[in-house]
Amino acid sequence: MADSSRAQKLDLVFQHIRNVPDFPVKGIVFKDICPILKEPKALSAVIDLFEEHVRKNHPHTELIVGVDARGFLFGPLLAQRLGIGFVLVRKKGKLPGPTVSVTYALEYATAEAEIQVDAVQAGQNVLIIDDLLATGGTLQAACELLKKQKAQVLGCLVVIELKDLGGAEKLPVPVFSLLQC
Amino acid sequence: MADSSRAQKLDLVFQHIRNVPDFPVKGIVFKDICPILKEPKALSAVIDLFEEHVRKNHPHTELIVGVDARGFLFGPLLAQRLGIGFVLVRKKGKLPGPTVSVTYALEYATAEAEIQVDAVQAGQNVLIIDDLLATGGTLQAACELLKKQKAQVLGCLVVIELKDLGGAEKLPVPVFSLLQC
Repeated sequence: MADSSRAQKLDLVFQHIRNVPDFPVKGIVFKDICPILKEPKALSAVIDLFEEHVRKNHPHTELIVGVDARGFLFGPLLAQRLGIGFVLVRKKGKLPGPTVSVTYALEYATAEAEIQVDAVQAGQNVLIIDDLLATGGTLQAACELLKKQKAQVLGCLVVIELKDLGGAEKLPVPVFSLLQC
Repeated sequence: MADSSRAQKLDLVFQHIRNVPDFPVKGIVFKDICPILKEPKALSAVIDLFEEHVRKNHPHTELIVGVDARGFLFGPLLAQRLGIGFVLVRKKGKLPGPTVSVTYALEYATAEAEIQVDAVQAGQNVLIIDDLLATGGTLQAACELLKKQKAQVLGCLVVIELKDLGGAEKLPVPVFSLLQC
């Protein structure tokens, strides 16, 4: 992709992120990605940019793993573009059959993330996708789940990275973000 | 699409649905759609079949509306194929900005579904997508939300319809399901 085309696509994505002050709590400016989904060209640009990154940097990726629920919006699209499968990491109790889970810390509580035991095979090359990287708790939990299943996590992909929160430094793999705020 | 090709695609989708007994509670056989997502050809077949239905029966569809969370797995793919936008219906408290909500009944409790007030415009032609139609509570709530916003709901699309539960009869719009169990 030419640099000018990449810049245009990034700009289109950026224009479709809405800042919502005081959500979910006072003092937080929420990055709303709904406008991206509503504009087919912006959504297509997100997938183009992710696809280019993966083909160049992780050509041997075998599975895209998406985090419940906003990772589900982008992950299957990217997986289809790459012609590979998509696997779900969900909140505890949502996935049927034998699962493995990990507990992780939220700001004032803990949560549990789960994956089906047959979702990945030992040694498989996987990339994890979510909409946003904040403190990194959820993506860290996803990495841990995949490590438990002996998968090879090549990296994490997010649309937006909130740099000031330092989430990337807590993750055991490189993070690729389209936009940094 | 030729009838033989359609039958092959439906068979491929059917082969990638797993029956999980006693989930989420004893006596329920859960239809697990994770294997569809993991096999790119099966996922592509789902979208091919939905796309054919929409282009033939609802060519003036302007938006695909997906229900949290498994509707998010299929909705953006279909919307991209059709070159139109995707809109989210979520559980209460997940969507930022001004929203409208409706309360609906679950088996032993109630839940609330929400949509952003600017997600749809009055008179817009929309289709709602989810993975499965059981008793129809969630899709009924989604229809109600869209009616509140004065959108024109053309129908609901689901991968699997559990016919015995009679969900389709409760919905104010036609349901198109790929597989009926």
